[in-house]
Amino acid sequence: MKKHVLPKGFLAAGIHCGLKKKRKDLSLIYSLKPCETAALFTRNKVKAAPVVLDQSLLRGKGRMRAVIVNSGNANCMTGVRGMADAVRIGKAAAKELKVGSGEVLVSSTGVIGRPMRMQPLLKGLPKLVKALSPAGIADAADGIMTTDRFRKVSSRKFKSGGADITMTGIAKGAGMIHPDMATMLCYIMTDADISAAALKKALSAAAGVSFNSITVDGDMSTNDTALVMANGEAGNRKISRAGRDYAVFLENLKAVSGELARMIVVDGEGASKVIEVTVRGARTASDARKAAKAIAGSLLVKCAVLGEDPNWGRIASSVGSSGASVDQDKLEVIMDGVTFFKNGAEAKMSGTKVRSVFKGRDVNITADLHMGRCEASVLTCDISNKYIKLNSYYTT
Amino acid sequence: MKKHVLPKGFLAAGIHCGLKKKRKDLSLIYSLKPCETAALFTRNKVKAAPVVLDQSLLRGKGRMRAVIVNSGNANCMTGVRGMADAVRIGKAAAKELKVGSGEVLVSSTGVIGRPMRMQPLLKGLPKLVKALSPAGIADAADGIMTTDRFRKVSSRKFKSGGADITMTGIAKGAGMIHPDMATMLCYIMTDADISAAALKKALSAAAGVSFNSITVDGDMSTNDTALVMANGEAGNRKISRAGRDYAVFLENLKAVSGELARMIVVDGEGASKVIEVTVRGARTASDARKAAKAIAGSLLVKCAVLGEDPNWGRIASSVGSSGASVDQDKLEVIMDGVTFFKNGAEAKMSGTKVRSVFKGRDVNITADLHMGRCEASVLTCDISNKYIKLNSYYTT
Repeated sequence: MKKHVLPKGFLAAGIHCGLKKKRKDLSLIYSLKPCETAALFTRNKVKAAPVVLDQSLLRGKGRMRAVIVNSGNANCMTGVRGMADAVRIGKAAAKELKVGSGEVLVSSTGVIGRPMRMQPLLKGLPKLVKALSPAGIADAADGIMTTDRFRKVSSRKFKSGGADITMTGIAKGAGMIHPDMATMLCYIMTDADISAAALKKALSAAAGVSFNSITVDGDMSTNDTALVMANGEAGNRKISRAGRDYAVFLENLKAVSGELARMIVVDGEGASKVIEVTVRGARTASDARKAAKAIAGSLLVKCAVLGEDPNWGRIASSVGSSGASVDQDKLEVIMDGVTFFKNGAEAKMSGTKVRSVFKGRDVNITADLHMGRCEASVLTCDISNKYIKLNSYYTT
Repeated sequence: MKKHVLPKGFLAAGIHCGLKKKRKDLSLIYSLKPCETAALFTRNKVKAAPVVLDQSLLRGKGRMRAVIVNSGNANCMTGVRGMADAVRIGKAAAKELKVGSGEVLVSSTGVIGRPMRMQPLLKGLPKLVKALSPAGIADAADGIMTTDRFRKVSSRKFKSGGADITMTGIAKGAGMIHPDMATMLCYIMTDADISAAALKKALSAAAGVSFNSITVDGDMSTNDTALVMANGEAGNRKISRAGRDYAVFLENLKAVSGELARMIVVDGEGASKVIEVTVRGARTASDARKAAKAIAGSLLVKCAVLGEDPNWGRIASSVGSSGASVDQDKLEVIMDGVTFFKNGAEAKMSGTKVRSVFKGRDVNITADLHMGRCEASVLTCDISNKYIKLNSYYTT
């Protein structure tokens, strides 16, 4: 496995504190210097306590030093007590790290509606802080996993403004997470020197083509969080909201986000295939996105891919019901490079070509609306009996 | 089985003409007198040729005499040829019935993207017309079925404006229809005398709480049609858009539509349970509807019901992501009469009560937002391995 390193001035750790039976369940990311921090949170109106806490901390525009993340309990739908617990976790971690209590963000993932077991968590804190290390990224990635089958880390090195910059991110799976809601958590650290405004803008842009362009089962979690922290330790010329430096930073942020997002889809519960849906020729960007999301979100399309059945009628119908402008006589449907429908009629195809479709692990569905120049892509996975089984037979 | 009769002045028939291998595949409903006719069609922008044809016929505000419906081929995504075929079917049926060609509506359901086989259909027409009978409703209901496991007929008799009125409807399954898209077709006949405006208004109101309040797999078909024809043969005092007569008519139309809609859910492919989702205490009707649709549409909720697992976190999260106004500290989640979450905390429940939830064939999920007085209900079904299997392993 590729060895990932943390950017300059960052330390990380992940330990087992006892929220889960055996596996690591508590992670910490820490920066020696205060960080510009940008974050995106779930738009679900039911939000976990730590999400509400972090949103309020970040509204203060303070620079952050650390984020502590537990798995095994989502601390969601836990009322006043849940919020008190989240605050207490942040304060206890800050005390142990000797930083301000407003400088530590808190995340949780796991079961909804159960009170946090604070004892093991608080007891584990000294050990966690002691374990902090420049080589701790893999442990931190392990500590945030729930039913993920593999660790998700991505990193890039690049030059910008006269310095070498490192960017490293970890994530845990979104969608189809047993036994409760699908939660996506992602933390990206960089030693780049970048303004708060530029960092915020870059995260939005990168998330649009990564975390916001994947769908597994259509359910939006109560805990979803994507965070990027920049401590400026690389000593580059400070990146502002425009220009070449920003473009390079954004390109790398997109690459790291995109790789993590793809890992999440590959790790979708029970998934056997990764489906890249592309809609092109749309009149507007919004139309392209709506149509791509509709195809990727269709249960019938997912079933067709699982069964390796190039059922183009389902794709056409999904586009038609997406709300995007579409003319069925202009629509073209392409699967794995083979055109099935064009100019208002089923295309003539050789049997060999038809049988080649959807056979691989990575498959492609393209709908060309032939109405404009806009394009969007969404990654998703198929659905299988394993998904149904995993998400049904969980005895409370 | 209950014997259903047609309203006065209506005849119906269903035969096997050869579009399908053995089962009935061609149905006809005919009125001796012209009918006020109201219809609702799919909002999918990819529409089957007969839907486009019917919409244009009905825009002419003419009164209708008949509707001819084939199963076995949806005549969708069939281009110019498909439209010519739909027109030809309507004209041929009109000629055989000796009525105007603008007085016959056409519907199709079945596979998408294949040209209609016109020969067997046209050849079957004389036999179909000859079979017309006041007792032909069951045959007509059979002729529109695709993979439906049972025939769907509903009827009501009631008094209005000094006369006995009959209302009889047939439908075919929506959702999870193998091997292609989910299509809902519904035709309701009545001998009531009612104005065109009142009929249109009543159909919209009835569909809102029946056909538009069910969801099976979230896919919207290219062929969905709900039609009501009124020929006035009962001789009642003409029903207009307001007053007691309208209220009685609407109540019965809701009952017939509701029963047909429920049958469609019960017959959902692979479904083992019928789920009634109710959202109450919403601030607006639109909020209630959004939240109910979000719960009913959640794959994770469906899985929970299949597994008889009262996983209330999934319900709360669906409400939260629905776009409806919700305060998680006010939200109450009730399953089969047992409150699981209230006042911001998990409720105390006996193990016996918890284990009783979701055990029956009919289950209930209620979310009380405690924010207002609006309410909405949606019917859906669970999802099972059988659904995945039916919709995946269909070899083209």
